[in-house]
Amino acid sequence: MSAALPFFAAASSTERGGTELLDPDELEAALRDIGARRYHNLHPFHRLLHGGRLNQDQVRAWALNRYYYQAMIPVKDASIVARMEDASLRRIWRQRIVDHDGEAEGDGGIERWLKLTDSLGFTRAYVVAATGILPATRFAVEAYVHFVRERSLLEAIASSLTELFAPIIISERVAGMLAAYDFVSKDTLAYFDKRMTQAPRDAEFALAYVKAHAVTPSLQAQALGALSFKCDVLWSQLDALHHAYVDPGLPPPGAWTPGGETTS
Amino acid sequence: MSAALPFFAAASSTERGGTELLDPDELEAALRDIGARRYHNLHPFHRLLHGGRLNQDQVRAWALNRYYYQAMIPVKDASIVARMEDASLRRIWRQRIVDHDGEAEGDGGIERWLKLTDSLGFTRAYVVAATGILPATRFAVEAYVHFVRERSLLEAIASSLTELFAPIIISERVAGMLAAYDFVSKDTLAYFDKRMTQAPRDAEFALAYVKAHAVTPSLQAQALGALSFKCDVLWSQLDALHHAYVDPGLPPPGAWTPGGETTS
Repeated sequence: MSAALPFFAAASSTERGGTELLDPDELEAALRDIGARRYHNLHPFHRLLHGGRLNQDQVRAWALNRYYYQAMIPVKDASIVARMEDASLRRIWRQRIVDHDGEAEGDGGIERWLKLTDSLGFTRAYVVAATGILPATRFAVEAYVHFVRERSLLEAIASSLTELFAPIIISERVAGMLAAYDFVSKDTLAYFDKRMTQAPRDAEFALAYVKAHAVTPSLQAQALGALSFKCDVLWSQLDALHHAYVDPGLPPPGAWTPGGETTS
Repeated sequence: MSAALPFFAAASSTERGGTELLDPDELEAALRDIGARRYHNLHPFHRLLHGGRLNQDQVRAWALNRYYYQAMIPVKDASIVARMEDASLRRIWRQRIVDHDGEAEGDGGIERWLKLTDSLGFTRAYVVAATGILPATRFAVEAYVHFVRERSLLEAIASSLTELFAPIIISERVAGMLAAYDFVSKDTLAYFDKRMTQAPRDAEFALAYVKAHAVTPSLQAQALGALSFKCDVLWSQLDALHHAYVDPGLPPPGAWTPGGETTS
């Protein structure tokens, strides 16, 4: 386990939680309040995406970049399993790795995401190589993996709690995208169907863990800070997409450009 | 030393360097070509900044965010020194830590940067806490620190080579800012005066090291990739500033907002 970077304590402390001990239900309410203020369903890019106001290249850029996030999720979860000393905890958390990686070739959440990028005209080799993604995507996703390796197990688990808010965004997104884009079908959005049941199951466990283990004001501040951090990870990915492909629409050097190559 | 993340090899391989061995001068030319195409003096935000087309709050946002980068530079350089097995190398590289941290309180590059944020109306406590910076700034800077810890020493050293291009940007920036902004003085830009001599000295050493040690096509590709990566680190910081404070001007939740607090 590598050491946390200096300034890291400050990194997630925009939610300081004060010095007052919250009871478990108050803590849950404070966690949900972070989602209500900072989850990326509030981002303009999300509204454009599910409102049908993006063109096909903008949807392509989103799917291409989001692939890298999806592909690193099992790496993130394996990093968390690697920190758990208790077999009963590891048994539960490892299901997340199974969900993303599948039981065999052609199965699992990453495969389902690739069906979406397939349908948008990217070759798998191009998507998987991740050479066309925005540097900001890479830095945000890597920050998430480093966070769960370097911070406490409580913070690593609390950072997953954006899944509490996922069902809302997924239902908005799937309905909106199906209605708006003729290049998207129910089949190509299969990834999200599965997440509608997986995310609440995962979030329920993580929420119970955080409520049971964040039992001092300082630990509660850490848990709240971890969820804020994770909201930043998601939000900054949409910021970068918005800047590069919507307004002003300036992809950084080396990133995929609309109309550009979709194969490698 | 923690393990590199999966996909990390791909991360910097937009400059693959092919399979042909370059002679040292060809390698230098290829490195300089990356700067000519990817250094952040080409970013629209840089042109707005030195062209006097930013308002005071936009300059504030730049100085506040850039502080975090400055403050982490000695952490980055100490991480590199910690990987050097040779005392003669460490003696040379440690000068970078001295330059930024100074010989005593009130001295050094970080202190000079704080003189700039002082003059823009931020309290030191607010700047140093780094609570108002953009998450994308934090993620990019942390990616740089993790890079020099996780990749080879050659790559860590090569990633510093953006200093080859620093004198151009600094002279443009200082002249432009002094001419354009009445809230900026030669005194508050003292940071850059020092860098005009430090950066070329540092870059000369790093360039000689890379030319001497990148002696296979694969090592040359790594060195070129490391410099591209570092250009991405700098560029993505300006992307985030441009998105949050210029166009469309949407700071993410929790980040400093124009007219917002400058003290803590």
